[in-house]
Amino acid sequence: MAQNIYDDDEFFEAYSRLPRSVNGLDGAPEWPTLVEMLPDLDGTHVADLGCGYGWFARWAMSAGAASVLGIDLSEKMLTHAASRTSDDEIVYQRQDLEHLELHTDHFDVVYSSLTLHYIVDLDGLFREVHGSLRPGGGLVFSVEHPLFTAPSNPSFVDLPDGPRVWPVDHYLLEGPRTTDWLAPGVVKQHRTIATYVTLLRRSGFELTAMVEWGPSDAQIAEHPSWTVERDRPPFLLVSARRD
Amino acid sequence: MAQNIYDDDEFFEAYSRLPRSVNGLDGAPEWPTLVEMLPDLDGTHVADLGCGYGWFARWAMSAGAASVLGIDLSEKMLTHAASRTSDDEIVYQRQDLEHLELHTDHFDVVYSSLTLHYIVDLDGLFREVHGSLRPGGGLVFSVEHPLFTAPSNPSFVDLPDGPRVWPVDHYLLEGPRTTDWLAPGVVKQHRTIATYVTLLRRSGFELTAMVEWGPSDAQIAEHPSWTVERDRPPFLLVSARRD
Repeated sequence: MAQNIYDDDEFFEAYSRLPRSVNGLDGAPEWPTLVEMLPDLDGTHVADLGCGYGWFARWAMSAGAASVLGIDLSEKMLTHAASRTSDDEIVYQRQDLEHLELHTDHFDVVYSSLTLHYIVDLDGLFREVHGSLRPGGGLVFSVEHPLFTAPSNPSFVDLPDGPRVWPVDHYLLEGPRTTDWLAPGVVKQHRTIATYVTLLRRSGFELTAMVEWGPSDAQIAEHPSWTVERDRPPFLLVSARRD
Repeated sequence: MAQNIYDDDEFFEAYSRLPRSVNGLDGAPEWPTLVEMLPDLDGTHVADLGCGYGWFARWAMSAGAASVLGIDLSEKMLTHAASRTSDDEIVYQRQDLEHLELHTDHFDVVYSSLTLHYIVDLDGLFREVHGSLRPGGGLVFSVEHPLFTAPSNPSFVDLPDGPRVWPVDHYLLEGPRTTDWLAPGVVKQHRTIATYVTLLRRSGFELTAMVEWGPSDAQIAEHPSWTVERDRPPFLLVSARRD
């Protein structure tokens, strides 16, 4: 069973105060880039892996999707998400993404935002997603960037008489990383960019786009402190297509 | 005209003493991985961009290639390379890779080792290479890893009371980086991994494999000091196919 930090009271309280929880997609700085990587959703069947509060599910319906299946492990998230919609074409389902089961040849788009870096068996998940897509269907996802997850001490440091730097070590040492993000002892899975590419290829996907996300000039003008995110991108965005 | 450091006497002397210059492909620790990314060369027409001493050209002929075109900007490298073979099916040619011109629909394999990070117009080069390949033909290349080229001070540092780290900044700030590698003022072009992927896709390539190279356990047993290369991979290896 996967770690279920989102049902931890302390974590959930802190998470619920994040800009992306309060303001939804507009509170996620990478959203304008991620949305450009999505195909036209008109008439499509969509799945959202790690759907959280359901912001994306509701947006996808407003963008013309025929149906959205939102999957999450957290009872709390699913309860919140369900309370926010009365649309019969949005279905929420509790599943452990480590043992995901989806209808085959069914979806046009599978989406996942900042969830897959928690998954140990990503190979298995990519295979299940590939089988669940119709030919020509697409997977679009974001994860924490490998540069973000790699270090043993993931915080910027000011070098003596030097610049502020992101201290990279263990980049090629893949596996669990335990951090104190919102609550102590959160476990993420560090993988290199090449491993994401390799696992996608091995599952039968063709890679169609990759973005190492950093803030735009307009975002930096509004939030000058975000400039450091250009020193070390926080998010990796990927789209892939079932051959 | 591209920078031509290899015809600088000081640089050339230092370069000629590197293990990969003295021992050829066996002196390049990433070669065992790179060779696995190459297709069967039997009967193929091959181009090598940045052919240097011609080690790869001679190896490709021994692996069954029908012909090899070795291209380099350096007169010195080409003179050395030509002096080391009498094979009529190896042709050396002086060209500036910034303005590369190749026969169209001709090559089965285009190879390039640790050269493309010098190229400013990589978009133009990828388009020329794509047009020069037969349908189904492949491009296999290595470059310095973007983690290696990004920092303003590209050297490991020991943090006070902390680990030895690779100090990353400016990762998303693409463009020239001036270093003092073998000679002062060597200019390389820093690009992110995503930009390599994007330029390949834009030129019509399908990405077929990516490796962020680090030493194997056997290599570390033989060279314990190479362990740090797992903290920050030195090379990015990529293969792509003409659709």
